Amino acid sequence: MKFSFKNDYSEGCHPHILQSLLQHNLDQQAGYGEDEYSLLAKKLIKEKINNKDSEVYLVSGGTQANLIVISSILKPYQCVVSASTGHILNNEAGAIEATGHKVLSIETADGKLRPSDIVPVLEGHMNVPHQVMPKLVYISNSTELGTVYNHQELKELSDFCKRNQLYLFMDGARLGHGLTAEISDLTLEKVAQLTDIFYLGGTKNGALIGEAIVLNNQVLQEDFAYNIKQKGALLAKGRLLGIQFAELMKNDLYFDLARHANQQAMKIKNALKEKGFESLSDTYTNQIFPILPHDLIQVLSGKFDFYVWKKIDENFSAIRLITSWNTPDEAVNDFIEIIKNF
Amino acid sequence: MKFSFKNDYSEGCHPHILQSLLQHNLDQQAGYGEDEYSLLAKKLIKEKINNKDSEVYLVSGGTQANLIVISSILKPYQCVVSASTGHILNNEAGAIEATGHKVLSIETADGKLRPSDIVPVLEGHMNVPHQVMPKLVYISNSTELGTVYNHQELKELSDFCKRNQLYLFMDGARLGHGLTAEISDLTLEKVAQLTDIFYLGGTKNGALIGEAIVLNNQVLQEDFAYNIKQKGALLAKGRLLGIQFAELMKNDLYFDLARHANQQAMKIKNALKEKGFESLSDTYTNQIFPILPHDLIQVLSGKFDFYVWKKIDENFSAIRLITSWNTPDEAVNDFIEIIKNF
Amino acid sequence: MKFSFKNDYSEGCHPHILQSLLQHNLDQQAGYGEDEYSLLAKKLIKEKINNKDSEVYLVSGGTQANLIVISSILKPYQCVVSASTGHILNNEAGAIEATGHKVLSIETADGKLRPSDIVPVLEGHMNVPHQVMPKLVYISNSTELGTVYNHQELKELSDFCKRNQLYLFMDGARLGHGLTAEISDLTLEKVAQLTDIFYLGGTKNGALIGEAIVLNNQVLQEDFAYNIKQKGALLAKGRLLGIQFAELMKNDLYFDLARHANQQAMKIKNALKEKGFESLSDTYTNQIFPILPHDLIQVLSGKFDFYVWKKIDENFSAIRLITSWNTPDEAVNDFIEIIKNF
Amino acid sequence: MKFSFKNDYSEGCHPHILQSLLQHNLDQQAGYGEDEYSLLAKKLIKEKINNKDSEVYLVSGGTQANLIVISSILKPYQCVVSASTGHILNNEAGAIEATGHKVLSIETADGKLRPSDIVPVLEGHMNVPHQVMPKLVYISNSTELGTVYNHQELKELSDFCKRNQLYLFMDGARLGHGLTAEISDLTLEKVAQLTDIFYLGGTKNGALIGEAIVLNNQVLQEDFAYNIKQKGALLAKGRLLGIQFAELMKNDLYFDLARHANQQAMKIKNALKEKGFESLSDTYTNQIFPILPHDLIQVLSGKFDFYVWKKIDENFSAIRLITSWNTPDEAVNDFIEIIKNF
Repeated sequence: MKFSFKNDYSEGCHPHILQSLLQHNLDQQAGYGEDEYSLLAKKLIKEKINNKDSEVYLVSGGTQANLIVISSILKPYQCVVSASTGHILNNEAGAIEATGHKVLSIETADGKLRPSDIVPVLEGHMNVPHQVMPKLVYISNSTELGTVYNHQELKELSDFCKRNQLYLFMDGARLGHGLTAEISDLTLEKVAQLTDIFYLGGTKNGALIGEAIVLNNQVLQEDFAYNIKQKGALLAKGRLLGIQFAELMKNDLYFDLARHANQQAMKIKNALKEKGFESLSDTYTNQIFPILPHDLIQVLSGKFDFYVWKKIDENFSAIRLITSWNTPDEAVNDFIEIIKNF
Repeated sequence: MKFSFKNDYSEGCHPHILQSLLQHNLDQQAGYGEDEYSLLAKKLIKEKINNKDSEVYLVSGGTQANLIVISSILKPYQCVVSASTGHILNNEAGAIEATGHKVLSIETADGKLRPSDIVPVLEGHMNVPHQVMPKLVYISNSTELGTVYNHQELKELSDFCKRNQLYLFMDGARLGHGLTAEISDLTLEKVAQLTDIFYLGGTKNGALIGEAIVLNNQVLQEDFAYNIKQKGALLAKGRLLGIQFAELMKNDLYFDLARHANQQAMKIKNALKEKGFESLSDTYTNQIFPILPHDLIQVLSGKFDFYVWKKIDENFSAIRLITSWNTPDEAVNDFIEIIKNF
Repeated sequence: MKFSFKNDYSEGCHPHILQSLLQHNLDQQAGYGEDEYSLLAKKLIKEKINNKDSEVYLVSGGTQANLIVISSILKPYQCVVSASTGHILNNEAGAIEATGHKVLSIETADGKLRPSDIVPVLEGHMNVPHQVMPKLVYISNSTELGTVYNHQELKELSDFCKRNQLYLFMDGARLGHGLTAEISDLTLEKVAQLTDIFYLGGTKNGALIGEAIVLNNQVLQEDFAYNIKQKGALLAKGRLLGIQFAELMKNDLYFDLARHANQQAMKIKNALKEKGFESLSDTYTNQIFPILPHDLIQVLSGKFDFYVWKKIDENFSAIRLITSWNTPDEAVNDFIEIIKNF
Repeated sequence: MKFSFKNDYSEGCHPHILQSLLQHNLDQQAGYGEDEYSLLAKKLIKEKINNKDSEVYLVSGGTQANLIVISSILKPYQCVVSASTGHILNNEAGAIEATGHKVLSIETADGKLRPSDIVPVLEGHMNVPHQVMPKLVYISNSTELGTVYNHQELKELSDFCKRNQLYLFMDGARLGHGLTAEISDLTLEKVAQLTDIFYLGGTKNGALIGEAIVLNNQVLQEDFAYNIKQKGALLAKGRLLGIQFAELMKNDLYFDLARHANQQAMKIKNALKEKGFESLSDTYTNQIFPILPHDLIQVLSGKFDFYVWKKIDENFSAIRLITSWNTPDEAVNDFIEIIKNF
């Protein structure tokens, strides 16, 4: 069987999680997120962001987190602003619109939003009451293109949002990868300070399922639990989410797993660079988009699974490689070996 | 720590499930329900209902299943009809209405809908286009009151729905318990023949999470997967659901677990009956509602957790006891012992 | 052709309105409610309620007003409470649910809500976050049964709502009739003081179309215009609504028309009473529900159109008669004559 | 007071409409569109499109018509495709998204959609079930830029939609203007043959309010009236809409009014052309976008109201002029005079 670089959710979960599930399996616990593991997970997250006034809710997946958060914040006539590469725009089957809200799309070079991207949108939506009102800025970190925000960029965006009465929401499906990128100077604590709401992705970083939504803005905390229940996201056995995030938050497992994924990707990236291959974009996280000759792609695809992302010309295409918390050295080395021998 | 009879989702999951999760943990699998365990689970379910033309989708929980199914079926002006005790009416935070649809409530004695209950609703909604159009009948089996449908009842309801161009949807959060009740003459195969759509509940019958939605009516199958994605219910690691249902469907584990829960409840019910206590309703599944004197309730609550359900008079209240796939004989015997000694 | 007592929207509009439409027809005016007639109408309404801080918006009809108001106020998980006879419950094709919100129904004897009706609903919805949160109380005056609130009743309900953080919304499709009922001690000014939001119905009181929504609670005023636009209720030629309400508000035309309708109904009611006939309910507005012998109903239906409302027994049925701003004495007298001669 | 070229809804309505409102004012009629004028209007429209199997519904305005039509057609996961200039995209406060549906935007040169514009959208939305499914093509005629479709263009688009299982919906807020443009070879009958659904705009062509939705595709006709009621668009006094469309459809009043508006615009356009001024786009309907020097704009704005649409450079800007069914020769001549004397 070929080794797959198609995504970071091909494997199960980190062994600590399975051990904990086994260990506590027959304990009787309260339902709906009131179990002791969920309470512990929330406590650990608040400690890591150093803010006991934030609130934490655990849900199953990214699309679910996005639609709950966005629909809980916006009034019917308000909309969300996203980079055109944003997951909510093109990869969630209209989940946001299904809750009644438009998503305004902004073209960007690298999947990141800057104040200068948003200003024209605000200026173009001042014909009250004929247009939707932009009220929420949605960003991803790392982005869907594998790029990351640095502290300065997030600070400027956060300040801009505050000045313009906009909420700032960070999709953290790959937040671990964003924060442990070698070029990142952001921390979880800073993310919590600079956003109104964000989530820590578990599904793509060693959990079976689970995203931890963190509400920093107290206005948005009011009655938030209702939204989780109403959208069908409140698990009777919340323990499943609690145990996973409790394990991921112990020591720095969450970050260690993401760092591993990033490092495996960087090894491949560097090997390709040495060989002189270019990339669609220069990323520092677990997604890379090298541009390779078709005959090399053919050789690689004999041994590995990955997506051919975009045809560049007659001879070259970009491929997408994603590494995970569990990508072994052996697979990486085999991949690099083929490249070197090409 | 007290033993809890509060619900059937206090514990983790059946050990077979954890074993399978462990065994397959590092296999790389396709995402979004295309993994081999999900495919196996679906195959096993289709075999059990003896209908290869049905389609099966695995989702996380009951409210999620209900809102996805109902919103996928109804046009904007159509509504669903439910017994007033229906879970969708009062226990899902308005999840159905949030998708745009009214739920019409019908008072019943035992939580079960019969054609004669629905006729007046149809007759009362003929002022086109000023009223919503009833189009879907929602039933639960076992019901929220612990009662069950027999074959004759379901057949009559199914025929009635067909004659009146109504869809019939069975919430099977506790379907295992319904079908293994000692008085039940229904089978999974018959349920599949008599409903347009139903689901097999896993969460309350030995899984960590999971409900298996079965679409028997081919009209309703069209493009159904979109609804799952749009409502945030498509897990990237669908393997988590697949492994659970594959295990539950092997041999008759699903039914064995439910039967165990029912039997434990029946032991307590019979002990109470022998002692002369009455019940709110005479149920044959894992939920019982005995009416007990307050001093006995006080004694029991010193050793067990359960809900006091309804005050009857100065001296008596009804309590609710729920047993599970994992309720041990020891707890049941201790409980009965107290009763006998009272 | 028979004279119709079927409803109060059978005729066109009061002649003053047509005169004004003619007179101003070719004036060029700003669109979307910024025309001078709309501004005048709003000014006159604010004067009549003696509150310059209220805001007024003109829309086309009652269902439209109801769905805009309710969806603008509620968060996704909040619901509205209504008497079971409320127009929003059974006569608007699920319009409120289509905006995402449940309507909780309360049985009442006379179509009016009292605090004691609402207390059990609040107490029955405290299982956070599993149930919808009641947040808005919807009442009609006059009610769908023709009954009216007096000042004391509205005051108690208003105080109750404030104490319980509930908004109070009065559907005033027939507000003119409610306020001019001979037994009413309410005024428009008091209604504005005691409700968060209400509307003045035009359609059923001499206008071609139009309801004037009055927002007294300043929290609810924020950005309200967006809701009107988004629901398709912002007329390009707002002048049509402005001219109508400007005319209705001049002097006391609005109240004179409603009083006329009430008086015509009372004449019939009194004639029936003298003859010894009973009623479904003792109303003082333009809707009456006399219980008549079938042979009298047959005679009346030879000359008049009306609805047979409810069969009482083998010999008697209740009919519904509605009078309007334009019901002539002749029709009323003819009707009474038949009764007297019976 | 300055004469306004700001829009085509500044004045009241054509005198025939007011005459008819006066003449029939006190007739008692059935409510909710069952009045004889509405029935007549529908009959006349069916005759003009030469299709007795089409169904016609009268509603108040364009945004209302758009949201009712689109939400009635689409399943929750389906979306509508529109030129980026489409009214539904940027001028309706998110009305379509509020019903749950995404609007995909396509950049065009002239506001018109061609099959080649739509192909890439279809190809880019094939990742089932992760993306919305395009199902409805929304076009306007005349477009928001004043351009028109010819028969060949509409035929090709219609054929393309049929081949791709897409519905075709024409927003006809200015359909009269589109069909009477001097370069148009389309007729109302052809429009009805080539679209699944379209509407005839009244508000911008001599009515006080009103758009006539015509459903040609019989699949879409089923239960359509419910959608009108549910969205608050069913007027109790449907006579107001019926009388207007009955008058507009008598003889060719509807087209005569639109042709007049077009001709007045063409006079100005030709005068500007003779003077050597260019336009943003070369339109043949009642909207023109001439590019004028700022000092001329200043002179014109002393005597006329209009919108300055877009700054071109230091010396020039485009303005938007809209003529109406009632724009008098005098205003046009005065405007042209100023241009000639510049």
